[in-house]
Amino acid sequence: MWSTKSSPQAGMPSMVLSDGPHGVRFQQDQGDHLGVHHSVPATCFPSAAALGSAWDSELARRAGQAVGREARALGVNVLLGPGINIKRSPLCGRNFEYFSEDPLLSGVLGTAFAEGVQSTGTGACVKHFAANNQETDRMRVSADVDERTLREIYLSAFERVVTQARPAAVMAAYNKVNGIPATEHRWLLTTVLREEWGFAGLVVSDWGAVTDPVAALAAGLDLDMPGGTGKTGGQVVAAVHDGRLAGAVVDRSLRRLRDAAAATAIAGDLLPVDVNDQHRLAREIAADCLVLLKNEAGALPLSASAAIAVIGQYATTPRYQGGGSSHVNATRVDSPVEELRAQLPGARITDHDGVDPTAAAAVGAAAEVAVIFAGLPERDESEGFDREHISLPADQTALITAVAQAARRTVVVLFNGGVVSVEGWHDKVDAILEAWLPGQAAGGAIADVLTGRVNPSGRLSETIPVRLNDTPSYLNFPGEAGHVRYGEGVMVGYRYYETADVAVRYPFGHGLSYTTFEHSDLMVTATGPDSARVSVRVTNTGDRSGKDVVQVYVAAPPLPVRAPARELRGFAKVSLEAGESAVVTLELDRRAFAFYDINAARWAVTAGTYRVQVGRSAHEVTAEAELDVTGDQRPRPLTLDSTVGEWFAHPAVGPALNAVLADGMSEEQARAAQENQDMLKMVESMMMRQFLSFLPVPVPDADLDRLIELSAQPASCT
Amino acid sequence: MWSTKSSPQAGMPSMVLSDGPHGVRFQQDQGDHLGVHHSVPATCFPSAAALGSAWDSELARRAGQAVGREARALGVNVLLGPGINIKRSPLCGRNFEYFSEDPLLSGVLGTAFAEGVQSTGTGACVKHFAANNQETDRMRVSADVDERTLREIYLSAFERVVTQARPAAVMAAYNKVNGIPATEHRWLLTTVLREEWGFAGLVVSDWGAVTDPVAALAAGLDLDMPGGTGKTGGQVVAAVHDGRLAGAVVDRSLRRLRDAAAATAIAGDLLPVDVNDQHRLAREIAADCLVLLKNEAGALPLSASAAIAVIGQYATTPRYQGGGSSHVNATRVDSPVEELRAQLPGARITDHDGVDPTAAAAVGAAAEVAVIFAGLPERDESEGFDREHISLPADQTALITAVAQAARRTVVVLFNGGVVSVEGWHDKVDAILEAWLPGQAAGGAIADVLTGRVNPSGRLSETIPVRLNDTPSYLNFPGEAGHVRYGEGVMVGYRYYETADVAVRYPFGHGLSYTTFEHSDLMVTATGPDSARVSVRVTNTGDRSGKDVVQVYVAAPPLPVRAPARELRGFAKVSLEAGESAVVTLELDRRAFAFYDINAARWAVTAGTYRVQVGRSAHEVTAEAELDVTGDQRPRPLTLDSTVGEWFAHPAVGPALNAVLADGMSEEQARAAQENQDMLKMVESMMMRQFLSFLPVPVPDADLDRLIELSAQPASCT
Repeated sequence: MWSTKSSPQAGMPSMVLSDGPHGVRFQQDQGDHLGVHHSVPATCFPSAAALGSAWDSELARRAGQAVGREARALGVNVLLGPGINIKRSPLCGRNFEYFSEDPLLSGVLGTAFAEGVQSTGTGACVKHFAANNQETDRMRVSADVDERTLREIYLSAFERVVTQARPAAVMAAYNKVNGIPATEHRWLLTTVLREEWGFAGLVVSDWGAVTDPVAALAAGLDLDMPGGTGKTGGQVVAAVHDGRLAGAVVDRSLRRLRDAAAATAIAGDLLPVDVNDQHRLAREIAADCLVLLKNEAGALPLSASAAIAVIGQYATTPRYQGGGSSHVNATRVDSPVEELRAQLPGARITDHDGVDPTAAAAVGAAAEVAVIFAGLPERDESEGFDREHISLPADQTALITAVAQAARRTVVVLFNGGVVSVEGWHDKVDAILEAWLPGQAAGGAIADVLTGRVNPSGRLSETIPVRLNDTPSYLNFPGEAGHVRYGEGVMVGYRYYETADVAVRYPFGHGLSYTTFEHSDLMVTATGPDSARVSVRVTNTGDRSGKDVVQVYVAAPPLPVRAPARELRGFAKVSLEAGESAVVTLELDRRAFAFYDINAARWAVTAGTYRVQVGRSAHEVTAEAELDVTGDQRPRPLTLDSTVGEWFAHPAVGPALNAVLADGMSEEQARAAQENQDMLKMVESMMMRQFLSFLPVPVPDADLDRLIELSAQPASCT
Repeated sequence: MWSTKSSPQAGMPSMVLSDGPHGVRFQQDQGDHLGVHHSVPATCFPSAAALGSAWDSELARRAGQAVGREARALGVNVLLGPGINIKRSPLCGRNFEYFSEDPLLSGVLGTAFAEGVQSTGTGACVKHFAANNQETDRMRVSADVDERTLREIYLSAFERVVTQARPAAVMAAYNKVNGIPATEHRWLLTTVLREEWGFAGLVVSDWGAVTDPVAALAAGLDLDMPGGTGKTGGQVVAAVHDGRLAGAVVDRSLRRLRDAAAATAIAGDLLPVDVNDQHRLAREIAADCLVLLKNEAGALPLSASAAIAVIGQYATTPRYQGGGSSHVNATRVDSPVEELRAQLPGARITDHDGVDPTAAAAVGAAAEVAVIFAGLPERDESEGFDREHISLPADQTALITAVAQAARRTVVVLFNGGVVSVEGWHDKVDAILEAWLPGQAAGGAIADVLTGRVNPSGRLSETIPVRLNDTPSYLNFPGEAGHVRYGEGVMVGYRYYETADVAVRYPFGHGLSYTTFEHSDLMVTATGPDSARVSVRVTNTGDRSGKDVVQVYVAAPPLPVRAPARELRGFAKVSLEAGESAVVTLELDRRAFAFYDINAARWAVTAGTYRVQVGRSAHEVTAEAELDVTGDQRPRPLTLDSTVGEWFAHPAVGPALNAVLADGMSEEQARAAQENQDMLKMVESMMMRQFLSFLPVPVPDADLDRLIELSAQPASCT
């Protein structure tokens, strides 16, 4: 599923598109448009929520490659992924399909994944463009979001993937953006995507998203999917006949479709993949995605000879993928408890399904350590609807509490796509391993980390808040009356918590290791007027090898817009043996210091001293250095609509204006003006035009013209 | 200042407008347009921030009357007040001129004040219409605010004042609303103000707000103030000549101006007011405005024979009014310390200016109780600019801390227009009396309350937050790049804190008394399908007479829009002798249960069980009763753009649709559909149009038409 129509006389081959950022979901012949029925078995790789937590672009590239390879084997031309929407609220039912709350992390990983897919010849289709950050009313809701927020948060990852990975396709989302359906949004699909970003590929609709195919084509959409009703063609033909749609627009889309089909064509026979190799790779990737949130009293890794109670139904049947269009018919699924048994032959492992918490507690009490597998059931999160809270089901928190009370040590392994609250039981357990939805190799990968065969290296790509109420979109999710107001603006995720100083349970970027790392010798060197090189020495100061993530944040000086306390501007994952040390170097380009200036319609850099910070998370800065940035933001020339405050604050015009005003004043007036500096503060927000009308002595027009001219001279603005 | 042009041939007398909700600011002859120079002495009454804290509409009426009387005495036709903008952020520099963060409280008090003014023949001019909630960039900034929020929060108080008090004039604000200058905003000035609310008076501009007089006239503005440049007339004449403006529009505004002048004309000689009577009234009003925030260990009232250290410069020269256009040249100003000496002849009162905290602490230590007068200096808050924090100056918190550490008991009296944070020193002092800017009789009124001659009865009309960061507009105040996003929507003030469960220092509605009150026998009786009568018995259970404020909140059931946890829907102040008891009865009309439905373009009431709550504050509910409301919100008829969820949820259509679908299914398909209820949740946000296109067997058009028709029948919606 699903293939486009071929047209031999137009040189148009058919093209097969398939769901599945986490694995290929390919239905043969009898496929239905919703795709709920059986698809061909394929490897289920870690969900994007998991892959995002690895903070490892090389790993994302390999994941993309693996899925792309499998797509080729099944005859799929275009894979409908990656999904790179921003996690605006933890409630979004489809967060498991997205990488992060941060656009840089989403963009870098999305780029690597798409490049990986496309390295196999399979086309990638980046989705869902744009501002598709919820499932509630997703077919109709208008995301009401200002342009700076769009540019800095919601379009930024798309911009990176489109310009760097050059994906075969972009998928237009279901929702409206500021009142206009994304499929008919000319500014999004043409002005920004094609004209600004240079996208030359195919724009396809989300499945059933197009309601007006003529408007969609005119706006820049090429392919209405799944298009099974057959009405689209007739409407388009009629519109061309009527002159409502230029034939050239249709030709252009046909050409793009032909180009995409040609670029993703499969030459020769399909080459099967080795399902065992793919599974091993899924396991290796998954292990690096797991985030060790908490680990006290050496609870982890598990001792090879311990008495271990493994508790919970997910210990035998893990929850490893999300529901909806990304659902894969896995080639096989590992059992966590069996993998633990295989890896720890010397341990005494008992297991219990946890349905009766009292019995489970007894089993836990009889062991040295209890490992509880908990999480969200599949019915609680899926494409198609949003969650209404971020708690685990009550039976699971009861189980955790009962076992933690009885057992000597308790480890909790969590399966969930969107973040879940750990409040209520967090302080009662010794260790928490966040496993996300780690794909079909969940069991092996988790056993690898629990036993220490793999040292955990995941970092949160989404903040774990204390309460849902603390999340920045709390008041404005999922909206009402057909609109969702992005009231928090750019203050999404950690940008909010750090700026408003709101306590969280675990910050963005947090994740523990079985070893320790030190950061030293931070060096920040300008490489241009608004770019820099950052280097920092990372030392593995513990006793086993492991991977650290260097997170580089930038904290801006006061800007003309409200800036977050800090923003992630670079990151790198580094693998170090025990005692080993390495210098990690990252380049910060102009965008690391830029904000989107809506009045100038450009990315602008304000001159000033920026702080470049290296941190263990968005909250914990371990080293900081200052960087003076020249910037390129010029004061706009003054007009009579500029405020009194702006006139007086202008470096060249202010003093000149003072002189002009003094000219027109009597000595007494001048003295009064001097004594009345507070008055100036009172009128500083007044437009100069109004202020002038209030003056007892008019300022000559010639003087004003001269001052305005002065304000427009570049030299006066330094 | 300032008079309009007369035109004897047009039957148009001149009309004098004067600033001053808190007192008449009348400049004779040599007045300047900014009005910074000396005005004729007038009584300075409590600021609106103070008057709002009295929660007493009768008191507001008397204040309006007193100011109106004084305006008459000075030959003023129209008084530019009351100001009823909502306190969206504590930072707004002009909050001292506004009543509350709540639209009901602002509207009821604004109505009473305007009625009081107009009872004297003086016209009231309610301002600033609309969404003028900050001073920063106030001449240009666009308040970007959705219609429900405008209707429920920012227009609501205006609606009440306009429809109930019928003020002579409404003042159009400086700012833009959703991109359109308020002075040129046809929807605001004509559609809403005149057509919906039936306003027949004069719309005047804020001083210097008009930039395009032709557009302003066309939109519904009548009078461009101060209009000193003389350009307006020429532009209007030219526009009429060109046909760009209908002459009838100009005639209509002239007629309104003539009517307003006639309605507010002063017949006969000016009748002087008795300045001593006015001062006594100012004192009586001020005393009821003071809010006793904290009073531990019986620190207040002061004992008649105590040794009292009175500390701080404001003890002799109180800060009693705010800066800007409302600034009054007071007839006299009471000294708090002298008034205390006069009232407590048996006490030993020492005073100290507090400039040297160490010396002040020594004076405090030598007394039985220290009374510190602290507050914001005048330069920290004024019309024209906003604050950047809510702290007291560091020297004042140092003074409070030093004295509190040394003195046996410490009482703090605060002067400030906008709320100030009490963090850092709150727990170190025994009592806090919030005096706001209480007008020229500050000294006497404060002495009345400190000595117990008047029992304090003020209640907070604005929440005192723990931190500025906790305020709902924190991220979006004062905006950027010419826009301020009202991102918190209707969740302003306590609506936010109570809904998001954010801790505050003192909630909206909080205020202590020297006696105690009990609420009992809450009765809520329906008086119609969506209105009710609330009665509650209030008993003074203490040993002295006092006044209590009955606050009635309504908590709505789940609505189609996000509703605040509770909203103030009625209040009454009641005076009771010690031991006395009274039943207070309040009427709740339809609007107490309504929200603004933007799609239906009307106030709608959702059927359900509402909780009617009586509380000591917005946070502390003392009694609650349920009320079943019939409501008048009907499901909208279904269309193919309605979602699958909406079709199935419809009481009549849902079952019928199930039957239609079952008709088209094979037995096997029907069984699969039954087993796959989770699928339905996944597609519930899909539009019916799309869902139908995905079905294997098409639903006949005739069936769909029948179901759509069924959904439009009123009977089917019960």
